[in-house]
Amino acid sequence: MTNIHRRLVGVGVGPGDPELVTVKAVRLLAAADAILVPATERSEGTAGRAEQVVLAACPDAAARVVRVPFSMGDRSGVTDRRREAWEASAAAAVAAFAAGADLVAFATVGDPSVYSTFSYLASEVTAALPDVAIEVVPGITAMQALAAASRTPLVEGTEVLALVPVTAGLDVLDAVVAVADTVVAYKAGRRLPEVLERLEASGRLAGTVVGTDVGLPGESIVAGRDAARTGAPYFSTVLSAPARATTGGRL
Amino acid sequence: MTNIHRRLVGVGVGPGDPELVTVKAVRLLAAADAILVPATERSEGTAGRAEQVVLAACPDAAARVVRVPFSMGDRSGVTDRRREAWEASAAAAVAAFAAGADLVAFATVGDPSVYSTFSYLASEVTAALPDVAIEVVPGITAMQALAAASRTPLVEGTEVLALVPVTAGLDVLDAVVAVADTVVAYKAGRRLPEVLERLEASGRLAGTVVGTDVGLPGESIVAGRDAARTGAPYFSTVLSAPARATTGGRL
Repeated sequence: MTNIHRRLVGVGVGPGDPELVTVKAVRLLAAADAILVPATERSEGTAGRAEQVVLAACPDAAARVVRVPFSMGDRSGVTDRRREAWEASAAAAVAAFAAGADLVAFATVGDPSVYSTFSYLASEVTAALPDVAIEVVPGITAMQALAAASRTPLVEGTEVLALVPVTAGLDVLDAVVAVADTVVAYKAGRRLPEVLERLEASGRLAGTVVGTDVGLPGESIVAGRDAARTGAPYFSTVLSAPARATTGGRL
Repeated sequence: MTNIHRRLVGVGVGPGDPELVTVKAVRLLAAADAILVPATERSEGTAGRAEQVVLAACPDAAARVVRVPFSMGDRSGVTDRRREAWEASAAAAVAAFAAGADLVAFATVGDPSVYSTFSYLASEVTAALPDVAIEVVPGITAMQALAAASRTPLVEGTEVLALVPVTAGLDVLDAVVAVADTVVAYKAGRRLPEVLERLEASGRLAGTVVGTDVGLPGESIVAGRDAARTGAPYFSTVLSAPARATTGGRL
């Protein structure tokens, strides 16, 4: 029996602040029969960030949350570990539909279109259940949250913005720095000092901020010139914008 | 007399769909004593897109809306016309504070950190009223709305994303195309055929979509190969992503 109304929706839940979720995301989380959330990598018993946002934005969601494996993006886009994670997520979605769900949400931190595995998961579900419609609800990214919180405009006028994962390699970062006015680097992790050196070498350090857990209780926003000293976790965002006359950033 | 609680907040109201506004934006629009909205350029008597979203997301806002001049971004970042627009906006904000407002919102389509004049406006207000705190609430951009609606992931794995206004020049576009995996071009306007030619020359046309008024009644999402024929308005978004095995886009 097919049901033409069945839907799998990738829902961006934003950077972590439960208020930076869209009205549409809240409505879909409230309506979903099952909400898949990536568990934290280290501790399956602890709610990951997506789950925390879901529960804060939609307090009655707890009974509908289904934890699925989470695997951090690493050097290559597709690894066995990532594949296992999205296959397990797809199996959980298929199981939810088999149990009668009409609407299954996959909650992802940030935006499902930006460094998410949702498209892989959706392809697996489509292969198993071709009648299920796939939808995406965009979400606020960490880059946007850091720009807002640090009052650093990402781009103005005719400026070019580039977003680069440091896992692409420092050569790629160099090529991007040569072309873009504003560079946002994700996933710097232990390579943060090297990233900051490169930004300094191109005269960009003054316009650089490093943000971690922006909008959350543990928020840290540090000027680039101080960040090399303090270090930063893997999920920090490095935002390097041109020095601008009007920028009234708080750092 | 100074009031340390006075705030000017740049509120991103997203791409146009009233459901793609954040919970935080709705709360601030509901609480604001005055909501500045850019009027449409051609007709001062018609609600611009930001005002339409404000009224849809927050129906009781009408009495608090103040229309201010809007000037499209053009070739250089700062023109007399743009300067006049943000100076008039700053004057409206200062007048609202003088009339007793504690919270003034400036509603901007998309995200105030992405090709907005909010930082200019904020600098003018700070010069006049140094005690007024400046805040920014991020919003969903047209790029994100188009990616979601067309089910085209912007970036996966180690891919690089670049955002370029065509007003920066086609040479800049070429340099960006050479470095980035996914290129988003704004403000193509009449140069859309040239933009599409360049994307075709670099083998990117198959992964290209052109979106206008995404999420609105007049929504148009066209494959790149068809867009040159149909043309597109100034505010269209050109999204050119790599061909991917998993992409299940609807085009």
